Amino acid sequence: MTPETLPAWPDCAADLIAVAAGRQPAETVIRGGRVALVHTREILDWQIAIAQGRIAYVGPDAGHCIGPETEVIDAEGAFVIPGLIDAHMHVESGMLTPAEFAAAVLPHGTTAMFTDPHEIANVLGLEGVRLMHDEARGLPCSMFVQMPSCAPSAPGLETTGHEITPADVAEAMAWPGIVGLGEMMNFPGVAAGDPKMLAEMAATARAGKTIGGHYASPDLGPAFHAYAAGGPADDHEGTCEADAVARVRQGMRSMMRLGSAWYDVESQITAVTERGLDPRNFVLCTDDSHAGTLTRDGHMNRVLRHAIACGCDPLVALQMCTINTATHFGMERELGAIAPGRRADLVFTSDLRDLPIGRVIALGRTVAMDGELTADCPHGDWPAQARDTVHLGRALTAADFAVPAPEGATEVSARVIGVVENQAPTKALTRRLPVADGAVQIAGDTCRIALVERHRGTGGVVNGFVSGFGYEGAMAMASTVAHDSHHMIVVGTDAENMARATNRLAEVGGGVTLFADGTEQALVELPIAGLISDRPAAEVAAKADALGAAMRAAGCTLNNAYMQHSLLALVVIPELRISDLGLVDVTKFELTDLIETA
Amino acid sequence: MTPETLPAWPDCAADLIAVAAGRQPAETVIRGGRVALVHTREILDWQIAIAQGRIAYVGPDAGHCIGPETEVIDAEGAFVIPGLIDAHMHVESGMLTPAEFAAAVLPHGTTAMFTDPHEIANVLGLEGVRLMHDEARGLPCSMFVQMPSCAPSAPGLETTGHEITPADVAEAMAWPGIVGLGEMMNFPGVAAGDPKMLAEMAATARAGKTIGGHYASPDLGPAFHAYAAGGPADDHEGTCEADAVARVRQGMRSMMRLGSAWYDVESQITAVTERGLDPRNFVLCTDDSHAGTLTRDGHMNRVLRHAIACGCDPLVALQMCTINTATHFGMERELGAIAPGRRADLVFTSDLRDLPIGRVIALGRTVAMDGELTADCPHGDWPAQARDTVHLGRALTAADFAVPAPEGATEVSARVIGVVENQAPTKALTRRLPVADGAVQIAGDTCRIALVERHRGTGGVVNGFVSGFGYEGAMAMASTVAHDSHHMIVVGTDAENMARATNRLAEVGGGVTLFADGTEQALVELPIAGLISDRPAAEVAAKADALGAAMRAAGCTLNNAYMQHSLLALVVIPELRISDLGLVDVTKFELTDLIETA
Repeated sequence: MTPETLPAWPDCAADLIAVAAGRQPAETVIRGGRVALVHTREILDWQIAIAQGRIAYVGPDAGHCIGPETEVIDAEGAFVIPGLIDAHMHVESGMLTPAEFAAAVLPHGTTAMFTDPHEIANVLGLEGVRLMHDEARGLPCSMFVQMPSCAPSAPGLETTGHEITPADVAEAMAWPGIVGLGEMMNFPGVAAGDPKMLAEMAATARAGKTIGGHYASPDLGPAFHAYAAGGPADDHEGTCEADAVARVRQGMRSMMRLGSAWYDVESQITAVTERGLDPRNFVLCTDDSHAGTLTRDGHMNRVLRHAIACGCDPLVALQMCTINTATHFGMERELGAIAPGRRADLVFTSDLRDLPIGRVIALGRTVAMDGELTADCPHGDWPAQARDTVHLGRALTAADFAVPAPEGATEVSARVIGVVENQAPTKALTRRLPVADGAVQIAGDTCRIALVERHRGTGGVVNGFVSGFGYEGAMAMASTVAHDSHHMIVVGTDAENMARATNRLAEVGGGVTLFADGTEQALVELPIAGLISDRPAAEVAAKADALGAAMRAAGCTLNNAYMQHSLLALVVIPELRISDLGLVDVTKFELTDLIETA
Repeated sequence: MTPETLPAWPDCAADLIAVAAGRQPAETVIRGGRVALVHTREILDWQIAIAQGRIAYVGPDAGHCIGPETEVIDAEGAFVIPGLIDAHMHVESGMLTPAEFAAAVLPHGTTAMFTDPHEIANVLGLEGVRLMHDEARGLPCSMFVQMPSCAPSAPGLETTGHEITPADVAEAMAWPGIVGLGEMMNFPGVAAGDPKMLAEMAATARAGKTIGGHYASPDLGPAFHAYAAGGPADDHEGTCEADAVARVRQGMRSMMRLGSAWYDVESQITAVTERGLDPRNFVLCTDDSHAGTLTRDGHMNRVLRHAIACGCDPLVALQMCTINTATHFGMERELGAIAPGRRADLVFTSDLRDLPIGRVIALGRTVAMDGELTADCPHGDWPAQARDTVHLGRALTAADFAVPAPEGATEVSARVIGVVENQAPTKALTRRLPVADGAVQIAGDTCRIALVERHRGTGGVVNGFVSGFGYEGAMAMASTVAHDSHHMIVVGTDAENMARATNRLAEVGGGVTLFADGTEQALVELPIAGLISDRPAAEVAAKADALGAAMRAAGCTLNNAYMQHSLLALVVIPELRISDLGLVDVTKFELTDLIETA
């Protein structure tokens, strides 16, 4: 069963009633389990009957629901908990299709996800959202889609492949799998009353759907209150207890994330475990999970296990990734609990703290057993235009990466993007760089960066300088994952290698590559929108691992080096970034010159 | 401001943002209060800014929201709590119009009500619902309407003035003030899969609205589970802890009621206070409040005070009549909390346990101060057909109330409705009654009862016998409040007085009257649908008190004697009732004979 074929509760109520009453046999009955009831916070030795992909009965004895054809499953003393829900995440962060993402997380017990295809929206616009939405509807689990709100995220400072408009938002709200607006990242815009942002939120609210929030600032004064007054219903950008408390006091839900590189649960969950606030408005999510994390560490089971390890009562933590999330999205009658009429999403685990995942049932069918996927996760049909998104307009050469020096200069003072270990913000540095043959040269830890336009084939290249990677020798790394407008970011020590890496990505239709001494060292192909592989998570993780090894071999010493690379064009996070329009001073939200005038 | 004129949050978001940011002054700022935050369960010395009938800001300092025109209210240390919400009630139970009901309860701090106009629907059909709905939309508070589900409540056993169909339900779901389906009383029908009941619930679910429940049976076995599987989302018919626990475990909300004659909070709230279940799924309501209760004792403040007196933590109890209720109806972003964007419904009280009610603010305006209404509650326009609903077809005479005896009998064995003190169910008694002049006579405590058809002027009279009232002398009492089909119930010791009482109600257009020795002793006029006065609560309460005194003067010793009278035609509660179609054996759901054949 899939979300597309799952009958709505009212459409199968007659069957559910008949099963519960004992007049009609269930398709499946589960006995011998310790059932977690998240409405009451209880564990009871109860039994469950399933029909039409939904729970028909949960109670002390489902014997009357068993007929000759009924599959009877013995839980053998395992806890039976509701399927885990990820309240906010981006499929693209795994470099995976929705199908492969689902295939990777179902064995971890995640049966429902609220996904914001913000990255693909920047490349393919509404059509990209539609493709993600449609593939999600055919999966054997619940993958809900939030309509991206901010493409471009910084209007006037970058050019996206496509833009998302209030009209797009209004249109998408009528699609069956759209559950709300994706994270409203333009928090200064909301606080300033930007009519476009307000129009998108209004279209969402009028559709009765949930406005996702994203308030990435430590300022909890009037700007924060103004943002809350604009309508965002949640926020996952909090990083400390005060952030979580502030959001919940404003009637927003605090989404606490543990992603591949986000660690915001431990620092915020004390609002519940120590301050004793009502836990109902706290929700768990991942936001961004890399394929390696999904392959090696888990997904929502990892987050739940972590929340419990942080001192949260296991049933309270379980509520934070089941019923709390469902209630938040206005779906408490549809999922998030083992109760009549709800989607039959169930996870068997022998231990509520360590959370080893045994059987996973989604939409009434067993989809994974002991870590192995047992269901089919069909790919959608990705059309040619979704696979042909790297348009350079021409082959680039080393000359494209030259930075001309001012007439007669022998040295210049250049603005350099300073990468900071383990932090998303960069530093705006100034470095004295030598000039040779009329062009600025690199020196010390400073290497070259280029933003190569790839949506419209303009042939545009914006050059700059970056420090902090530690690259040595003649090398270049290029990626078409280049948040948020996803042109191509090329970082290197050598213009020739930069040209080769760039042209290579055009050849394979996007991805990440590293060249050293003229030879490709590693490649992750991402043919869909230049963001997404069409291969399984383990395969993508192996390639990403090889890429990381190649970065280290080239001298890079950063943690999360690939992520740092892909964020260098993120022109909403201070201090200095690069976009297709030039070097961006994100402390002032304006373009700035690469070479400082004397 | 009224629900009709209140701008939706998205339509005034720009103003709310500007106020919160300090760019535009608030209409009202409240300082000096101890603000109850029901999202976190905290009390903070915070300030509140209001604009456009909604909360624009709640936080530590609203100074930046104050302009020269801003009304600044000093709460002088009072607790400022969200306006109280009644999760389930019938306006008609107060014999009041929506306007007079609101006028009576606003000074008690009730600012939002979920009302099911089930009684008027039985008399006037969808048009009656529409009239209630429209009057509600013009009030200075939030009166939401649930579309009645069961008229008639017992198809085939009674004839209502109008019927409610699935098409009516589907139509009403598009009205702005309709929030869901009123209590689905036909619980045997749901458990049996009755297509009409399922169609009504489906129309509600498809509109994204809430299906109210009513499961009035102690059977918590498969029939109960089947009912839950049908879709009702709440139930207020629980009477003991096991009932409350059973409902919440099925993912329904337990609505615990304290009405004029319902006492179901104390016996159920132990599920929270003693068993420690998560309180979020418990909700408080009144169901039925008489005008006297509203005048003398209060409304939701009475329920909240009682819940706290039962041992519930005050803030947990407060959640049960604010945010829990709002969440239940999918309105957690609209009301039930002091948070940005929500309706500005606030109550000032100096004590969180005794709950003396000071200032009451609804939709941003002060509507009551220290028990006195300060706002206008405008009556709707009740058309002639709503005021002309008592159609007897002819003047009745004493002969209409004669019960012919079988040819030649001198005594008969008659089925007698036995009223039981303090209980809604009746007993099916058998009494030997004498015969005189070919007609059955009364004897002992048995007196006459007649069900007089009043919707279509058929002139139909169904006669029977009832015991338990204790009436003495020549008297009769008649009422057009006759649940649920609301014909006219006449109980008396004397056919002449019965005819007079009946004709008197036809003359005044409905109500309740008591005649003794040929003279009217008391009268409550209920000209609207024969159910509702158009006078204020205090006036109606005084008349109802006078009627009660007249009943006692006529020898009646029952508690809630008027209520017992009005329930004698309620053909869904065992054991023996009377309807326009005859005597009804409610243990078998079939018509039965008045005179037992030998």
